[in-house]
Amino acid sequence: MRIHGTDVGQRSETVRRANLSAIVRGLHEHGPMSRSELVAATGLTRSAIRGLVGELAGAGLVTEAPAVRLGTPGRPSPMVRLNPHGATVLAIEILVDSIAAAIVGLGGETLAEIRVDRPRGHLSVDSVVADLAGLTRELQASVHDPLIGIGVAVAGVVRRSDGLVSMAPNLGWVDVPLGAHLARALGTTIPIAVANDADLGVLAEHRRGAAVGVDDVLYVSGEVGVGGGAITGGVPLTGVAGYGGEIGHMPANPDGVACRCGSTGCWETEVGEGALLTLAGLPSDAGRDGVEAVLRDAEAGSPAAVAALHHVGRWLGIGLAGLVNLLNPRLVVLGAMHGRIYPFVRATIEAEIATRALPAPRAIVRIVPASLGADAPLLGAAELAFEPLLADPASRVGARDGAIHLATA
Amino acid sequence: MRIHGTDVGQRSETVRRANLSAIVRGLHEHGPMSRSELVAATGLTRSAIRGLVGELAGAGLVTEAPAVRLGTPGRPSPMVRLNPHGATVLAIEILVDSIAAAIVGLGGETLAEIRVDRPRGHLSVDSVVADLAGLTRELQASVHDPLIGIGVAVAGVVRRSDGLVSMAPNLGWVDVPLGAHLARALGTTIPIAVANDADLGVLAEHRRGAAVGVDDVLYVSGEVGVGGGAITGGVPLTGVAGYGGEIGHMPANPDGVACRCGSTGCWETEVGEGALLTLAGLPSDAGRDGVEAVLRDAEAGSPAAVAALHHVGRWLGIGLAGLVNLLNPRLVVLGAMHGRIYPFVRATIEAEIATRALPAPRAIVRIVPASLGADAPLLGAAELAFEPLLADPASRVGARDGAIHLATA
Repeated sequence: MRIHGTDVGQRSETVRRANLSAIVRGLHEHGPMSRSELVAATGLTRSAIRGLVGELAGAGLVTEAPAVRLGTPGRPSPMVRLNPHGATVLAIEILVDSIAAAIVGLGGETLAEIRVDRPRGHLSVDSVVADLAGLTRELQASVHDPLIGIGVAVAGVVRRSDGLVSMAPNLGWVDVPLGAHLARALGTTIPIAVANDADLGVLAEHRRGAAVGVDDVLYVSGEVGVGGGAITGGVPLTGVAGYGGEIGHMPANPDGVACRCGSTGCWETEVGEGALLTLAGLPSDAGRDGVEAVLRDAEAGSPAAVAALHHVGRWLGIGLAGLVNLLNPRLVVLGAMHGRIYPFVRATIEAEIATRALPAPRAIVRIVPASLGADAPLLGAAELAFEPLLADPASRVGARDGAIHLATA
Repeated sequence: MRIHGTDVGQRSETVRRANLSAIVRGLHEHGPMSRSELVAATGLTRSAIRGLVGELAGAGLVTEAPAVRLGTPGRPSPMVRLNPHGATVLAIEILVDSIAAAIVGLGGETLAEIRVDRPRGHLSVDSVVADLAGLTRELQASVHDPLIGIGVAVAGVVRRSDGLVSMAPNLGWVDVPLGAHLARALGTTIPIAVANDADLGVLAEHRRGAAVGVDDVLYVSGEVGVGGGAITGGVPLTGVAGYGGEIGHMPANPDGVACRCGSTGCWETEVGEGALLTLAGLPSDAGRDGVEAVLRDAEAGSPAAVAALHHVGRWLGIGLAGLVNLLNPRLVVLGAMHGRIYPFVRATIEAEIATRALPAPRAIVRIVPASLGADAPLLGAAELAFEPLLADPASRVGARDGAIHLATA
């Protein structure tokens, strides 16, 4: 047994590391701040902030610039901002119909990004990994900053500890050691963290999107599959191994149809893209263009399209009511297809929630569409890759000897 | 905006408080330890432990006794244990068919407890509060140790910030400011924390019962209503206001019957006591005796009793499969009626989970009956009341001037 404590013998180093982390995390999550704002935000003294910011500047992680004087009294306080080129991560996204890669700088600025649409259907792991290695080479031709981590978002059930994709039914993958495959293809020993796309989507919406400043958020993101991610009390709800958040596979309709996960009547079978398209009389694989067609038809008054949207909206509302009762979120963020159809199903969702959610949590929750679009999982992958640096920037302070590059020859 | 940081100007006091907390929390959660074990568990130096334990002993919070020599080499290290009389809390439990009060000492020892069964049905808040004040007076006649907090478990939806019971359908309460009522009836200004009974049940099972050492736990506890509580990553899942965990009111059967919450087809309507009794041909209000009768009948081969148990087991399995997919827990703990019927429905539950839970989280989860029985919410209420002391025992160190008593005249 080990209980939490602070080693008195090392306490000044522990405190220094915690303070560096507070500064870097604050700037990363909230943007540039003046030294005075950092003093106010951290509770540290002015001289402590000056010293710590100096250390970070020495390591190339922050830059300082004179503040523009805005008519407030007192001496202008230098503005401190993260240097996006001081530390970068490679973010990768593997969805059912696209792959993407980006290099993101500290502070969250995307320095380069490539997205490639792909036909849907099962894809071999080898071909996906080879394509991603190609995208990575392209990105690295234009960005040469130090790379400190790799984050991967994949539309599947992922074991966080080693990046094993237990199951990605819409890609056709079972027990794929994706982290290891990528490390080999990229020829790198830089840490690779893999997670479920919706779990990273909610992280991105929380840091940079529709849920900034909200610590209890449920994210629902439907396309071929229906994924979910939650943040409760500011902490991602991952479960014991990282498999948590699979709201698409909560039983919703015991009399429902077969789900590709092997069960029947999962929420996904009632609120996923396939359900909407089929009910509207389109092929279940008509994809995003099909969804747009359903919305156009509904606007033109097509009864089938209107009924299909009503069905999906009703089941969305039923499932969300249960999740509101379970998780008591302040915000529900609807991503991908569900964000797109939200204006059409809003009233239906709200009617179900009014009937089925308990009054207390219902009075608190708001439902909004996502704001980051298809990039949410990619940006979340970058956040995942930055996490070790945010938790302990001291590991980089002093390490000024230039870029670490992937060997992708 | 305020970002986390440590005020350098106060850092030695901050570190001292954190270290006192680590020791007291460790002893409270894990039991007595030798000074050597505390050194190993906290990472603090031997002299730091001696000094901090001395401070705690001076405040009456711990006692030290020579260790029994067990043949291990080296000098025996004094055993440090919490003094249950050094700080106590009043724990209160308000269930549908009983009320209880206990005085619990630091470390978790119950020093005195009274439980009173009551007929089911709606109860006025005033009568419950008056009865609890009476129980408290009885307890205080026998225990005179310093009382530092009051924790209350109630079978309802509770706002944590102020102890408002938004809704307790089985008691007939709506928007009852229970914390304020109790403070007035007890004539005290000691902090009163109120929470949902199942949320406190899982806290107790986590600290003292079937889920010790397990940081990802789902607790399901059915009686008249079906409550739930979850701990994820070691942290209680409360939601933004404390309303979280209402798994009994997740929509389960869209074609189901009316629920007393106002919705239809809630999980509670399929797996609650009323469902079991009605399906077995008994009155829905036959209570715990009725449940025992169903189990006896099932053992004797009664088809109605067997079918009733199968129905409840099947719906338990369906709902648990969804919760396993959502929360990825290591352990599911079944309390109250669900713990009682578990031996009879185990195979049915497991069959549903095998079909409906995703392979990855399914391979991890175990299902066990609760181990603390009806006392779980009461013990959880004590844990809730101890939390401020565990987080900052420094607030008590030096405060040695005797007992703080409730004025219950």
